[in-house]
Amino acid sequence: MDIAKLREAHPDHWMRAAAIRTLTLDAVAAANSGHSGMPMGMADVATVLFKNHLKFDASAPLWADRDRFILSAGHGSMLVYSLLYLTGYEEMPMEQIKNFRQTGAKTAGHPENFLLDGVETTTGPLGQGIANAVGFAMAEESLRARFGAKLQNHFTYCIAGDGCLMEGVSQEAIALAGRQKLGKLVVFWDNNNITIDGTVDLSDRTNQPMRFKSAGWHVQEIDGHDPEAIDAAIEAAKKSKKPSMIACKTHIAIGHAKQDTSKGHGALTDAAELKATKEAYGAPLGAFEVDAKVKGEWEAIGAQGRGARADWQARFDEQSERRQAEFNRVFAGDAPKKLSAVIKAFKKQISDEQPKMATRSSSQKVLEVVNPIMPETFGGSADLTGSNNTLTEGLGTFDETNRKGRYVYYGIREHGMAAAMNGLALHGGVRPYGGTFFCFTDYARGAMRLSALMRIPVTYVMTHDSIGLGEDGPTHQPVEHLAICRATPNTVTMRPCDTVETAEAWEIALTSQTSPSVLVLTRQGLPTLRTEHKNKNMVASGAYVLAEAEGKRQAIIVATGSEVSLAMEAREILQAEGIGTRVVSMPSMELFAEQDESYRRQVLPAGPVRVGVEAALRAGGWDRWLLGERGRESKQAFVGMTGFGSSAPAEELYEKYGITTANIVAQVKALL
Amino acid sequence: MDIAKLREAHPDHWMRAAAIRTLTLDAVAAANSGHSGMPMGMADVATVLFKNHLKFDASAPLWADRDRFILSAGHGSMLVYSLLYLTGYEEMPMEQIKNFRQTGAKTAGHPENFLLDGVETTTGPLGQGIANAVGFAMAEESLRARFGAKLQNHFTYCIAGDGCLMEGVSQEAIALAGRQKLGKLVVFWDNNNITIDGTVDLSDRTNQPMRFKSAGWHVQEIDGHDPEAIDAAIEAAKKSKKPSMIACKTHIAIGHAKQDTSKGHGALTDAAELKATKEAYGAPLGAFEVDAKVKGEWEAIGAQGRGARADWQARFDEQSERRQAEFNRVFAGDAPKKLSAVIKAFKKQISDEQPKMATRSSSQKVLEVVNPIMPETFGGSADLTGSNNTLTEGLGTFDETNRKGRYVYYGIREHGMAAAMNGLALHGGVRPYGGTFFCFTDYARGAMRLSALMRIPVTYVMTHDSIGLGEDGPTHQPVEHLAICRATPNTVTMRPCDTVETAEAWEIALTSQTSPSVLVLTRQGLPTLRTEHKNKNMVASGAYVLAEAEGKRQAIIVATGSEVSLAMEAREILQAEGIGTRVVSMPSMELFAEQDESYRRQVLPAGPVRVGVEAALRAGGWDRWLLGERGRESKQAFVGMTGFGSSAPAEELYEKYGITTANIVAQVKALL
Repeated sequence: MDIAKLREAHPDHWMRAAAIRTLTLDAVAAANSGHSGMPMGMADVATVLFKNHLKFDASAPLWADRDRFILSAGHGSMLVYSLLYLTGYEEMPMEQIKNFRQTGAKTAGHPENFLLDGVETTTGPLGQGIANAVGFAMAEESLRARFGAKLQNHFTYCIAGDGCLMEGVSQEAIALAGRQKLGKLVVFWDNNNITIDGTVDLSDRTNQPMRFKSAGWHVQEIDGHDPEAIDAAIEAAKKSKKPSMIACKTHIAIGHAKQDTSKGHGALTDAAELKATKEAYGAPLGAFEVDAKVKGEWEAIGAQGRGARADWQARFDEQSERRQAEFNRVFAGDAPKKLSAVIKAFKKQISDEQPKMATRSSSQKVLEVVNPIMPETFGGSADLTGSNNTLTEGLGTFDETNRKGRYVYYGIREHGMAAAMNGLALHGGVRPYGGTFFCFTDYARGAMRLSALMRIPVTYVMTHDSIGLGEDGPTHQPVEHLAICRATPNTVTMRPCDTVETAEAWEIALTSQTSPSVLVLTRQGLPTLRTEHKNKNMVASGAYVLAEAEGKRQAIIVATGSEVSLAMEAREILQAEGIGTRVVSMPSMELFAEQDESYRRQVLPAGPVRVGVEAALRAGGWDRWLLGERGRESKQAFVGMTGFGSSAPAEELYEKYGITTANIVAQVKALL
Repeated sequence: MDIAKLREAHPDHWMRAAAIRTLTLDAVAAANSGHSGMPMGMADVATVLFKNHLKFDASAPLWADRDRFILSAGHGSMLVYSLLYLTGYEEMPMEQIKNFRQTGAKTAGHPENFLLDGVETTTGPLGQGIANAVGFAMAEESLRARFGAKLQNHFTYCIAGDGCLMEGVSQEAIALAGRQKLGKLVVFWDNNNITIDGTVDLSDRTNQPMRFKSAGWHVQEIDGHDPEAIDAAIEAAKKSKKPSMIACKTHIAIGHAKQDTSKGHGALTDAAELKATKEAYGAPLGAFEVDAKVKGEWEAIGAQGRGARADWQARFDEQSERRQAEFNRVFAGDAPKKLSAVIKAFKKQISDEQPKMATRSSSQKVLEVVNPIMPETFGGSADLTGSNNTLTEGLGTFDETNRKGRYVYYGIREHGMAAAMNGLALHGGVRPYGGTFFCFTDYARGAMRLSALMRIPVTYVMTHDSIGLGEDGPTHQPVEHLAICRATPNTVTMRPCDTVETAEAWEIALTSQTSPSVLVLTRQGLPTLRTEHKNKNMVASGAYVLAEAEGKRQAIIVATGSEVSLAMEAREILQAEGIGTRVVSMPSMELFAEQDESYRRQVLPAGPVRVGVEAALRAGGWDRWLLGERGRESKQAFVGMTGFGSSAPAEELYEKYGITTANIVAQVKALL
C-alpha cells in the first residue's frame, strides 16, 4: 500500500483518518487486547461519512432525528470510540479511550448501547448489526409516515464485515430490506478479504455485489481508501430508492506491518511496528496524542449538525402541544395513560364472559383492544400470522406502498425478525412485537439474548408452546425452551393460564422499559380460570394463589399456562376426598423470584406437599420452587416432560406423557 | 392449471405422480392435519428423480452408496412417506400411511430419521435440510477420496421450499457448498410462490437464481410439472462440477380447489374437493387406494437399483478384509479399538507432567493423539481455528483441491457448520467435530437441538466458556449457555477441569453413538488437578470425589471446569483451619444424573454443607445438586454469576463477581 501517495492526495482527510487509526493502535496496545485492523481499514470511510454526510450533533447523542451509525463489525469498537472522542461526545473523554476494555470503562470490548448513548446498538455477535439496521430503517420509515418528514427524516448507516455477511442472519436482513425497499439504509461492506482463519476465499467465494443485487439492493463498488470515491458513493446511495450497499475495497491494518493479514485483524501491540506505522502515517505522536489541529477539525465535525438540530427543534416546537407530547411519549417508551384502564375493562369482561380459548387467541383479543390505543405498536410474524394471532384489524401492512402500516410480514426469518425488532426498539418511537412458534426461539436465540443484554422492551409472541401443538411432532414441540428463556438474564418469560392472565402479561410487556418479554402461548383452547375480577395485575407478582385449600392445607399444586386448568381439576378431586389443596398459578418464575421473601413464603409456605406441573422439562427452573423455598425433597414431585415429545394428537400426547389430572392427583396422594 | 393437458402429455408419468398426490390427500384428510400442497406440487419432480436418477434399493435403505434424498421442506412429509410406500420399503406398509401423524406411527408429522431408515434426516425446522445436505455431500466427497469411487460415489438430492431459502441457515449452507464446489449436490427449489401468510412477494422478492449464482452454483429454471424438463435438468445438474440448483416452477396443491393459495399449503380435508381433485387427476379411487398397475411400476422403481447394489457389493467384496472392516467400522460409528489405550496413555503422561494449560489447548493435545488413529474424524471451526484449537498437524484442508483433507474452514457460519455436521454424521463414515465460542451456541442452537433429537454423535468444541474470556465482554461471555445445553434432552455437556478430564470427555464424545457432545472449554490456563493416574474414565460418571475431606467431613464443594481449581484452593484453606472439605468435580451433570442413586449418594451424602461453584448461572442445573439429592436449603450456597458479565481482564472479572477462593471459603464458613 502506498501510504505516502494516499497522504499526498488528500492530506487533511488523511490526518483526520489517521487520528482514528493511531487512537485505535494506542488503545489496543494499552489494553493488550482488541482488534486494531478493522478501524484502521475503515477509517477513511468513517471519516468521509462523518464529515460530509452523517447528520448528528455530538452534544446531543439522543436527538431523535439523528442519522444512525451502526458498527455491525462490533469487534472494531475502537472505530466508534475514536469517533466519539474525536468529535467531542461528553461521555467519551480521553480517559475512556485509555481505559479501553478495562473494568468499569464505557469502552467495552464490543460497543454496548447501555453503557454509551453514542452507541446505537450492541454488536459483536456478527451479523446482528446489519439486521438491527434494517429495524432502525423501518422505524424511521414508520415514524416519518406518522409524524412527517419535519420530525423524522434520517438515514441509517451500517458498517458490516465479511463475518457479518457470512452469518445467515445477514441474508434474512438483506432480503427483508430489499423487499421493504428501505431506501434510507446504507451498508458499507468492509471488503478486506481477511478473516481470522485466513483470506476470505478459504471459506467463502460469494460474489457479494451480485448477492445484494439479487435481493433488490443498489450496489456500488469503490476503493475504500479514496475519499472522493467514498463521498460520491454515499451521495449516490442516498439518492437511491433501494437500500444501498457500498462494497469498500480496503486493507485491514493499513500501513502496518501486519496489513492484509489475519494477524492484522487482532491486537497489534508490537511497539516498534506501532511506531513505524505512525511514522508512515505522518503522525509520529506519543501514545494517545492527537494533533490539536486535527482534533479541532473533528470537533467542528461534531458540531456541524448543531444547526440542523436547532432547525429540527424549531420545527418540533411548532407542533401542537399534543403532538409534541405524543412524540416525546413514544420516544420515551411510555405506555399511554389509558392502557391500564383498557386492560382492566378487558379483564373484567373476560371474567364475566369466561370464554374458552387458546392463549394465542387471547393474545389477539388483547391486541385488539391495545393496538387502537397504542399507535406505537409495530407487529409482525415470521410467516405464521394466522397461527400466532399477531394481526389485528386496521393495523395495515407495512411496506413500500404503505409506511403507515404497522404490521410486517417478516417471512420465514425468525432471527432476522428478532434482530430487526431489536433495531426498531433501539431506534425508539415504536414498540415492536413479533410472533413465531415457541420452538423456533432456537432460530431467534442470537437476537433474543441481545434484547436482554441491550435492555430493550421487545415482545416475543411465542405460540404453540408445548406438546399441545400435537401432530407436528418433536421438531415443533418445545420442551427445553422455557428453561432457555428463564435462564436468560433480564428476560421476562410469561406463560399465562387463561385470557385474563394473558392480558396481564401483555400489560407487563407493553409497559416494560428495560426488559424483553416472552409470551408463551398455547395452540389449544383453555378455560377461563380467573373468573373473579381483580383490578390488580396478578401476573406481575409472578405467582399467586389461584385457589385456596379448603380445610387443612395438605398440598400445593404449582402450575403454569395450559397446565393450571389440570391443577384446578386435580384440586377438585383432591378436595372431594378431603385433601385440602391450594393451586398456585405461576405465570412468571422471574417475576416471582423478584418478590420479597415474605410474599414468596405466603404463596409457598413450608409444610404442604408440592407438585409442580408444566408440559416441559423440570430443568425449566422447577427445582427451586419444589426443593427450595421451604420445600423438601421427600415432599415434592413434578409432572411434566422428561425428554422430547412425539407426533400425535395433543390429547393423546398429554396422556402418553402422564400430564393429566389423574397423575397429578396420584402424585399428591403418593406424597401424603 | 390444465391438468388434462398434463395427463395427456405423459400419461404413465402422470399416474405415478398422481399416486403420491392422492396418498397425500388421503393421509392428511384422515389425520385431519398435515400439509397437502407441497407433496402435490413436487410430485412430478420426485417421480422423475426416483424413476430416472435416484440410485437406491428399497430393500436396502441403509446401503452405504445410495444416493441421499433429503426433504428440507419437511412439512411435506407425505411426499417421503408416499415414495417409501410406493417403492416398497418394508418399514412403510399402508398401515403406516393410514396412521399418519398418529400415536406410535413412524409417519410422524415431519420426517424423523430415528423412526425410519428411509428418512435420511429429520426436517421441519426450515433450512436445516439443505444445510444437512451440504454435510452429506461433503461426507461423500471425503469418503470417495478415502475409499475410492468404487465404494463411494453418489449424489445428494434435496428439495427445499421458499421457507428453507428465507432462513438464514440456507445462505450459510449455499455459500459453503459453493465454496466447496460440491458438484454432487443437487437442490430442487419448490418455486410455488406461496407461504403461509400469502404469496411469497409479501415478504420476499429475492431473485433466487441470481442469489445461487452469486454463491457459485449451477442454476437452471424449469417447469416443475414437465417431466422431460425435470429429467433434462437433473441430467445437466449431475454433469456440473458445481453444486446445482434447479428452480422448479410449481403449483402448490396442483389440481385442487385450493391450488396456488396459502390454504393449499396446509391440510386439505374437504371431502368434496378431495373427490373432485382425484377425478381431475383421472384417479377417482377410494381412500388409500392405489391402482395396481401404478403400484407395480413404483415397486419396479424401488427394485431397479438392486443391480447397482449387487455390483457395489461385488466391488466391496473384492476389497481386502482389512479395508472392508475399516469401511464397516466407520459406517457403524465404532471407535477404533486402540482409542482406549491411546487415551489412557495420554492421561498417564499428563498426570505425570502436570502441565498448566487452557482446556481448549488440552483439547488440541487430545486431538493430536486421536486424529492420527481415527481417520474418520472430520474437524473444523467457524473461523476460530486458532482460538478453538481444533486443527492438528496433518489433517489437511478439505476443499475442492484436496478431498482427503479432514479439516473444514466453515467460515463465520456457526449454524451452517452445526447443520453440516449433522449431515456429515447422518451420512455415516465420518465423525464430525467443530468449534466456535461457547456463547455462539446461540447461533448454532437450531441445529444443535436437532443433533440431540436425531440421536447423532456430533461433537461441539465450545471454547471461551465463561467470563474467563475477559475483555471481549458480555456479548461473548456465556452465562446461561450451560443451562441451555444441559436442558436439551440427549445432549451430553461436559466441562472438564483439566487436561485429564478433557481427554476423558473426548473419549466419551468419540465413542458416543446416539448423543451429541458439547465440550465446554476455557480460554484461560488451568493447572492439572488429576495428578494421580486412573485408567478409569472418571468423567463418564459425571461427578466424582476429586479430593476427600481429611478429618470430619463438614463441607462438600462441587465445581466444574475452571472453577474446580478454585475449589481445591478453598479446600486447602478450609482444611488448614480444620474444616474437613471434600471437593467433587462435576464435569457432566447429565452423566451424573444417569448414575444410580447409591453412587450419587456416595458422592453427595447427606450431612455436610454444600457449595456449588461455576462461573455461570445457578439456573444451569445447580438447584438439583444443592437443594436436592439429600441437600438442604439452609445448608447450601452457590458461587457463580447472577447476570450478564462485562468487559475487563478475566482475573478482574472473577474478583468482581466474587468467584474466588476467598468467597468459597467464606460461603462454607457461613453455612457451618
